[in-house]
Amino acid sequence: MVSELKQGIIQCVEDVKKNNPMVGSVTNTVTINFVANAQIAVGGSASCVYMPDEAETLVEKGDSFYINLGTILPIYEDTLPQAGRLLSDTHKNWVLDPVAVGIGSLRTRLLRQFNAYKPTIIKGNASEILALAGLWGLEGGQAASKVRGVDSTELVEEATEAAKSIAEHTEGVCVVSGKEDLITDGRRVVRVKGGHEILANITGSGCALGGVIAIYATQVEDPFIAALTGVQVFKKASEKAAEASEGPGTFQAKFLDFLHNLTPEEIADNEFELVEE
Amino acid sequence: MVSELKQGIIQCVEDVKKNNPMVGSVTNTVTINFVANAQIAVGGSASCVYMPDEAETLVEKGDSFYINLGTILPIYEDTLPQAGRLLSDTHKNWVLDPVAVGIGSLRTRLLRQFNAYKPTIIKGNASEILALAGLWGLEGGQAASKVRGVDSTELVEEATEAAKSIAEHTEGVCVVSGKEDLITDGRRVVRVKGGHEILANITGSGCALGGVIAIYATQVEDPFIAALTGVQVFKKASEKAAEASEGPGTFQAKFLDFLHNLTPEEIADNEFELVEE
Amino acid sequence: MVSELKQGIIQCVEDVKKNNPMVGSVTNTVTINFVANAQIAVGGSASCVYMPDEAETLVEKGDSFYINLGTILPIYEDTLPQAGRLLSDTHKNWVLDPVAVGIGSLRTRLLRQFNAYKPTIIKGNASEILALAGLWGLEGGQAASKVRGVDSTELVEEATEAAKSIAEHTEGVCVVSGKEDLITDGRRVVRVKGGHEILANITGSGCALGGVIAIYATQVEDPFIAALTGVQVFKKASEKAAEASEGPGTFQAKFLDFLHNLTPEEIADNEFELVEE
Repeated sequence: MVSELKQGIIQCVEDVKKNNPMVGSVTNTVTINFVANAQIAVGGSASCVYMPDEAETLVEKGDSFYINLGTILPIYEDTLPQAGRLLSDTHKNWVLDPVAVGIGSLRTRLLRQFNAYKPTIIKGNASEILALAGLWGLEGGQAASKVRGVDSTELVEEATEAAKSIAEHTEGVCVVSGKEDLITDGRRVVRVKGGHEILANITGSGCALGGVIAIYATQVEDPFIAALTGVQVFKKASEKAAEASEGPGTFQAKFLDFLHNLTPEEIADNEFELVEE
Repeated sequence: MVSELKQGIIQCVEDVKKNNPMVGSVTNTVTINFVANAQIAVGGSASCVYMPDEAETLVEKGDSFYINLGTILPIYEDTLPQAGRLLSDTHKNWVLDPVAVGIGSLRTRLLRQFNAYKPTIIKGNASEILALAGLWGLEGGQAASKVRGVDSTELVEEATEAAKSIAEHTEGVCVVSGKEDLITDGRRVVRVKGGHEILANITGSGCALGGVIAIYATQVEDPFIAALTGVQVFKKASEKAAEASEGPGTFQAKFLDFLHNLTPEEIADNEFELVEE
Repeated sequence: MVSELKQGIIQCVEDVKKNNPMVGSVTNTVTINFVANAQIAVGGSASCVYMPDEAETLVEKGDSFYINLGTILPIYEDTLPQAGRLLSDTHKNWVLDPVAVGIGSLRTRLLRQFNAYKPTIIKGNASEILALAGLWGLEGGQAASKVRGVDSTELVEEATEAAKSIAEHTEGVCVVSGKEDLITDGRRVVRVKGGHEILANITGSGCALGGVIAIYATQVEDPFIAALTGVQVFKKASEKAAEASEGPGTFQAKFLDFLHNLTPEEIADNEFELVEE
């Protein structure tokens, strides 16, 4: 029920602010600063690494983990499988952002391997979710050849089945970001309204969403709540920041301000719809 | 003629906003976020990679390409020649920013190779243009040993001959950034006035200019127009942002705002002088 | 005496603004942009590299150097020892920020090697200073196993002995950042008051402090003055920026503004206490 979900969001936001959870990340160099600042703004603590043994240490020490494939480097060949395997073995909550799935042989190989590690939460735009389901041979998936760079060229609607297949397969949660964001655990499907389109006019809003969901994933029994909380805070903060700014530069600064300043109630208040339950 | 160039600028700005072209980049880690945000602010779409096969994919999928040598990594030994060769073979427009030419053996080797790939547009400060012409054995060039870090220590005036030699050699365009920027295709020479010196008080203004020119280079027959459009928008946006801010931090945010908000006419209106045609 | 130290701060700030010193860095990808912008904001010039021979060139050409271990890459195995050895051989002033000491085998190996290179100024939070002293077998040190990510979990007080041991060993200066910052050269101990806690709500404030101290270290006989000047400007700028902003996003922009705009006298005026001399 919606009211229970709202209660869960409020609790999750409060718990993060109280506990200052630490989340390790392997994430891309384009948006790494924005991701870390977003994670800190909502009340978390951020550590980023590239080396395999350091990723393992952060998996062990951290309260959850975030893997974003934006700009992969040769060392990822070792780092990501080691981190993924350990995350899977230790049953820690973690978030995968399969940025640009379909581009490059190492990226493809890594994402194939992640099939076995079953990320708790997978977040992507519609193209990425369709392509990932395709790569993993899941229902609703498509060949990666449709993916255009890192931008969404498919509608969230089309990716719904793929998202549900992924969530069923991982026994986790899948988030499809777009004009309206869709969140599913294979059973429940939520559509989140609101937000401001200027969020698409800066780089890193998707990456930062993944990073922030990883922060919220440290405080929940149910990862669905973590994903929903992250999406809600992004929608609400982007609306408020758009009102308070005059373009993508000042928007970024104001957006981080609102990630930090929004109350749990304001975050829970953003409109969403439980379309299946 | 100046009025034709202004018409070309207006068309170029409008076309980018309409078509949202995608440009792949291999660029430095210091300013990669600022570059991508600048590319998006003017209406483009940005993808950045390090792996050789991924660069090749982005060359093929993208509407132009941007290579910036700021902070090279070992993998660049493979990535840049592969991308450069493909760009040359496919006759795609691309921009090279030979940051810190003269420092390091890999950087020198890579820039020597680029001689054969003939970048459509080369952009650097005066020191870099002088040193690149020197490295390529072109008239007006100088030994790289004069280059001081990434800062300009030579005047744009001194680099004019080197810039013309480079443009003649590549059958492309060369941009020399400085207090006044100089743009030449070996025949025409334009000097662009205006701009605000605070642009030199932030890191990445030069890199972002290269990235934005690559965006404009997707929409033109004549790369000279793309280079001029990029320089014009930077001059005008830096003036407006300097007025609206109180230091280098708030300037950055406002600068991205104006990159996004300036009208085609405002961009064309910045003063430039056609000194040779 | 305090008044002499204040005179030294004023001189140091003025000299940097007059001479625009160039500092090379090998620093982490999370905060590399913020570090470079902070270095430029106070009047310096910033160059960042990863390749071993390029780091050597910047050591030779630059006026000091900054090494920050935040996100190490495989190439650091070659780059950092080569840079460290040359810095030691040439007796150049340089700053080491031993971020996340205790995590990872390469990081540990590199930091062990730095023991022989004797960094002029070492800056870390209390956990890092305790762990580095532990790694180097110095009095007051602790096992790295207490270190929690990149956040301080120890009090500055507890790290005082470790900081003094480090400074005595390197015949340099050690800075412990925290609520109050502590600076020592093994003999003198200064505690710097003031500052605003929101500085801990953004990533990179510690890294940027290291980078800025490296800028000031180019203009002084006594590295203690450089460290003190860097800490003073951060405390004062963070207070002013916190007043002028509404959250961590706008704070960042304003913070860079104040790094740039504060007068030498305002910087010297921040309260500090000479507890031992």
